[in-house]
Amino acid sequence: MTPQLARYFERWTAKVNKALDHYLPKENVAPQSVHKAMRYSIFAGGKRLRPVLVIAGSEICGLSGSKVLPTACALEMIHTYSLIHDDLPAMDDDDLRRGKPTSHKVFGEAIAILTGDALLTYAFHLIAKNSKMVNSAGLIPQVVETVAQGAGFAGMVGGQVVDIEMGEGKWFRHPRKKQIEILNAIHRGKTAALIKSSLLAGAYLASARPREVKRLERYAEGIGLAFQIADDILDITGDKKLLGKKGSDQANRKLTYPAIYGLEESKRKARSLVAHAKAELNSFGSKSQVLSELADYIIARSN
Amino acid sequence: MTPQLARYFERWTAKVNKALDHYLPKENVAPQSVHKAMRYSIFAGGKRLRPVLVIAGSEICGLSGSKVLPTACALEMIHTYSLIHDDLPAMDDDDLRRGKPTSHKVFGEAIAILTGDALLTYAFHLIAKNSKMVNSAGLIPQVVETVAQGAGFAGMVGGQVVDIEMGEGKWFRHPRKKQIEILNAIHRGKTAALIKSSLLAGAYLASARPREVKRLERYAEGIGLAFQIADDILDITGDKKLLGKKGSDQANRKLTYPAIYGLEESKRKARSLVAHAKAELNSFGSKSQVLSELADYIIARSN
Repeated sequence: MTPQLARYFERWTAKVNKALDHYLPKENVAPQSVHKAMRYSIFAGGKRLRPVLVIAGSEICGLSGSKVLPTACALEMIHTYSLIHDDLPAMDDDDLRRGKPTSHKVFGEAIAILTGDALLTYAFHLIAKNSKMVNSAGLIPQVVETVAQGAGFAGMVGGQVVDIEMGEGKWFRHPRKKQIEILNAIHRGKTAALIKSSLLAGAYLASARPREVKRLERYAEGIGLAFQIADDILDITGDKKLLGKKGSDQANRKLTYPAIYGLEESKRKARSLVAHAKAELNSFGSKSQVLSELADYIIARSN
Repeated sequence: MTPQLARYFERWTAKVNKALDHYLPKENVAPQSVHKAMRYSIFAGGKRLRPVLVIAGSEICGLSGSKVLPTACALEMIHTYSLIHDDLPAMDDDDLRRGKPTSHKVFGEAIAILTGDALLTYAFHLIAKNSKMVNSAGLIPQVVETVAQGAGFAGMVGGQVVDIEMGEGKWFRHPRKKQIEILNAIHRGKTAALIKSSLLAGAYLASARPREVKRLERYAEGIGLAFQIADDILDITGDKKLLGKKGSDQANRKLTYPAIYGLEESKRKARSLVAHAKAELNSFGSKSQVLSELADYIIARSN
């Protein structure tokens, strides 16, 4: 990460964390268990990539990031809810997340399910609340729509479902061409969709012009897919303790980029996606620096 | 149910069902399992009370119900998601719902969790879509907010959490006054909150005046609580086969109105709530007939 990007993250994650603390229900208010569980997972040490994307999407289109903090928090809540539900025994059955016990390990399965539900619901509440801080309340439906699309059956949930449908090596049965199709559906859904929604939510709140939205959309699709490829690579090469979770994809014979393309070709694909993504930013001039450096950072993690 | 109210339900449930079929993803589109599961639970035979409340809330404030169908569908999706998650093994562990196998029994736990998530997410998408059919897109944030509040940690999810926190007879330990407090928190949350959100969502879409909103809010709080009391009563007195679920609350020593107040006093309370709710409708004149008859119907079920 360049020093400038690091400073941007530092500045905005501090503000996002403060806003999250402000918006989340207090731990000592009933019903306490769900409020505690919401805070436990939200403050378990995420990178705040999605909130920063909301902010960067807004700023590249000319609106200060401080005007989109409720929506930035909303995207972090949606990301967090998805991790809580993914970790459940009926799903990936993970005991650890970022080196800490997962929500259901601490609060029990029922509360973990409800905590995910509460975070997802509250996310839309916060997007609605954002209406008072922007130019027009009429911008909100577009934001809700793009976020719901990225998070729902055509996005994140859909990717997770394909992943489950193809679990336990079921993708082995398909020919290579179909495997690639499935792989892209999973990756677009599970990660890229919400990354795109984050960036576009910020852009819409800044009253972005359709041409700007189109470019940011293509940029986000590129870095979103590159991000997931980098995750696949890290799962094989990374320090598992450092990641704080089991390096389990390979063991479970999960469909990943390295499994289909091999390690070197996967890295090449990620680099190419990032180069194309950065090219989409040209017309934004000097305002594009943050997103440009962010694109590089996304694959630097896995190099 | 009066013949007139029955006709109102018949007419609008037909339209709501058609709209649900239109908006829900098709079963033959990938990923099929979640699309099938969404449709399975949505079309499992609900009464469509919440959609009809959205419509009635809109119509009593002067806007045709046909203009709020996306939001009406949204509220049914939220209701259905909550049933799917409530039935999960980690929660109430129910095998049957309305006489049919529950979602996780048919599709497995992982898909059932994700199907609930997908329905909840799509609900907000549909509310956003409703912006094109009403006077101003600027009305939508208020609708999203009231629905998220009714469904989230301060509403439905919160009620469910208190219910779990007080499960297995834990409420026995508290003094009677505290028991009543807990009971009301559960009932307000689990049922009344979303009933209120449904009615108010319709009212907001119809650009209701603040005074109208206040009255409908009080009406909805009354019938919402009466509805849950009636459910408690039915759980003891009703034909269990007819209800299609286990008459299990008593067996689990769950906190219910009859458990605290006895059967007769519970019935009296429900009747009193309904009478007060109906009084709130006076100023709406002849347009109030549907909601007035609906209030009577809600307790007639349990008499």
